[in-house]
Amino acid sequence: MLELFDEIKGDLQVVEEELRAVVQTQNPLLTETSTHLLNAGGKRLRPALCLFGAKFYNYNLEKVLPLAVALELIHMATLVHDDVVDASMTRRGIPTVKAKWGNSISTHVGTYLFAKSLILLSKYEKTPIIARVLSSISVKMCEGEIQQISSSFNICQSIKEYLHRIKLKTALLIAASIQLGAAACGAPVSIHLPLRRYGHNIGMAFQITDDILDMVAEESQLGKPVGSDLRQGIVTIPVIYALTCCQQRKRLVELIGKVEKTEEEIREAIKIIKSCGAIEYSFNLARKYLLKAKEELKSLPDIPTRFTLSLAADFIGVRKF
Amino acid sequence: MLELFDEIKGDLQVVEEELRAVVQTQNPLLTETSTHLLNAGGKRLRPALCLFGAKFYNYNLEKVLPLAVALELIHMATLVHDDVVDASMTRRGIPTVKAKWGNSISTHVGTYLFAKSLILLSKYEKTPIIARVLSSISVKMCEGEIQQISSSFNICQSIKEYLHRIKLKTALLIAASIQLGAAACGAPVSIHLPLRRYGHNIGMAFQITDDILDMVAEESQLGKPVGSDLRQGIVTIPVIYALTCCQQRKRLVELIGKVEKTEEEIREAIKIIKSCGAIEYSFNLARKYLLKAKEELKSLPDIPTRFTLSLAADFIGVRKF
Repeated sequence: MLELFDEIKGDLQVVEEELRAVVQTQNPLLTETSTHLLNAGGKRLRPALCLFGAKFYNYNLEKVLPLAVALELIHMATLVHDDVVDASMTRRGIPTVKAKWGNSISTHVGTYLFAKSLILLSKYEKTPIIARVLSSISVKMCEGEIQQISSSFNICQSIKEYLHRIKLKTALLIAASIQLGAAACGAPVSIHLPLRRYGHNIGMAFQITDDILDMVAEESQLGKPVGSDLRQGIVTIPVIYALTCCQQRKRLVELIGKVEKTEEEIREAIKIIKSCGAIEYSFNLARKYLLKAKEELKSLPDIPTRFTLSLAADFIGVRKF
Repeated sequence: MLELFDEIKGDLQVVEEELRAVVQTQNPLLTETSTHLLNAGGKRLRPALCLFGAKFYNYNLEKVLPLAVALELIHMATLVHDDVVDASMTRRGIPTVKAKWGNSISTHVGTYLFAKSLILLSKYEKTPIIARVLSSISVKMCEGEIQQISSSFNICQSIKEYLHRIKLKTALLIAASIQLGAAACGAPVSIHLPLRRYGHNIGMAFQITDDILDMVAEESQLGKPVGSDLRQGIVTIPVIYALTCCQQRKRLVELIGKVEKTEEEIREAIKIIKSCGAIEYSFNLARKYLLKAKEELKSLPDIPTRFTLSLAADFIGVRKF
C-alpha cells in the first residue's frame, strides 16, 4: 500500500509528526497511552485520503494538515472505544489500551483523542462544512457501533442491514476524509462530491475485505487473531451469505449463536463458511463497490492523483492485511 | 434550587423538551439508554447558567437554545463515561447505564451524546469562540478524569493538585456555560469574561461541596451511597486536609490506601475525617470561592439576573444534594 502513497510520502510524514506532537500532554499516563496507540501503527488511510482529496484543488499542506491529523485522531478514538469490550485484547499485533490499562482509562483516552481532534477542527471556521459533516458522522459512527453490539450473536440479519452498519462504522469517515480534504482547500461541490462518493465506495469495499480477512488471513499479517468477529458474535457478510445457502446451515446457526466458542468451533465455523462460496461472494461484492468507486473518478480532473486513486481501489480488492 | 430558576423556568422547560427530542434515534437501544439518563434527572445547572448568562445581553432563547442543550449533553456524556468504572452502580438514586447495559454500551452512548452536542454546536459558525472554548475544555475534562484515576488511592496529594483536578473536571464547563450563554447572544468580552470568572468560582465551590456531601449527606438525598469517593479511592479535600493534621493519621492512611474497603472501614474513615475539622475547613474553602464569585458580579449590569446569581452562590454553600 505504501507505494501508492509515494506522491504524498513527505507530507504524510509531516502528518505523523504532528500527530505525535498533538497528543503530548503534561499527564504522563495520557501521553503514554496515546503514544502506545501511535506506535501500534496503522495504515494512516484517512490522512492519506485527505491529502489526496486536497490534490484536486489548490493543494496546500498547511490548510489540510489539521484536518488530516484530526481524521486520524477520530479514527484512533473509535479504535480505543471499540476495545472497551472484554473480548478484544490485541489489535495490530500488540496489546490494546484496554488490555494494558483497563476500560475506564480506555474510555477517557478515546474521548481525549476525539476532543483533541475538535481543537484542530475548530480552526476551520471558514469552512463550516467540515464541522457539519464530521459532527454528523461521529453520531452515526456511534449508532453503527451500538447497532453492532445489539445485533451480535443474532443470526437473523439481512445483507442490507450489514451494509448499512458498515457504512456507519467505516465508509462514512473514509468518504469524509477525501471529500473534506478537497473542501479544506476550497474545492467546489463538483469536485468534493464525486470524491465523497469514491470514498464511500472504497470504504464499503475496505470493510467488506476486512471482514473477509478476519476469516481467511494469516494471523501474523492481520495483527490480531483470525475469527475475532465470530468470537465476538459480530455477524459479517460471509456469515450472512453462508446462512442463506450452505448445506450445514443448522450447525452453523448453532456455532454462531454460541457466546463462548472454543478454538475448534471457530475453525469449524470458518470451514463451513468457506465451503459454500461465501468468501468468493463477499469478494465479488467488494469488487462491485470498487468498480463504482472507479466510475466516480471519471468526472474528476485528470491529474496523477486520479490514477493513484484508481490503483488504490484495485489494491483494496487484493489486500492481504 | 428550583426557585432560583423561576426567572427562566419556561425556557428551561423548552431546553428539557429539546434535550429529549435531540436524543431520539432509530436505534431503540440508544433511545432507551439516553432517555433513561434524562429520566434520572439532574439539576440542569449548565443549561440554567447558560440562559442566565444570555440574560446579560440581548436575551434570545432561539440563539442560546442549541448551546444550552449541547452543554447538558456534554455533561451527560461525562457522567456516562465516568460510570465505566466497576464501582459506580447507581447515580441519582437509580442504576447507571453501565450497571444496566455494560461498559461497552456506556462508552458508545457517552460518545454518542458528546457527538450529538457537536451537531448543535456546529450551528454557531458565526460565534467561533464557542467551538474553541468547548473543544479545549473537553480535552481538559478528559485530562482531569485521567488524573483522578491515576491519583486514586494515592495519599500524597496536595490541595493545589486537588484544586487543579476539580477545575478540569467541573469548574471549566460550568464557567463556560455562563460565559458562552452571553457570547451566543453577542455579548462583548467586558460581559462574558466576568461571567466566566463567576462561573469558575461557583464551579469550584460546587465540586468542593459535592465532595463534602459525599461524606456527610443523607444517602436518600444524595441519590448514591455515601462514601463512594472513598470507596473508589478518589482523594478529595476533606481527606487531604485530614491527612495533614488529624491525630489518627496512621490509621487514616491505612484505610484510604485499601483498595477493597468494608462498609465498617468507610464509616471509620469518615468518622476520623470529621473529627479533625476537615468538613469545616472544606466548607470554608468553598465559601471563599463563593465570595469571589459574588465579587465578580459587581462589574456586571445590575439586572434582576445578577441578584439571582448572587443567591445561587449562597445556595451552593448550603446545599444538601
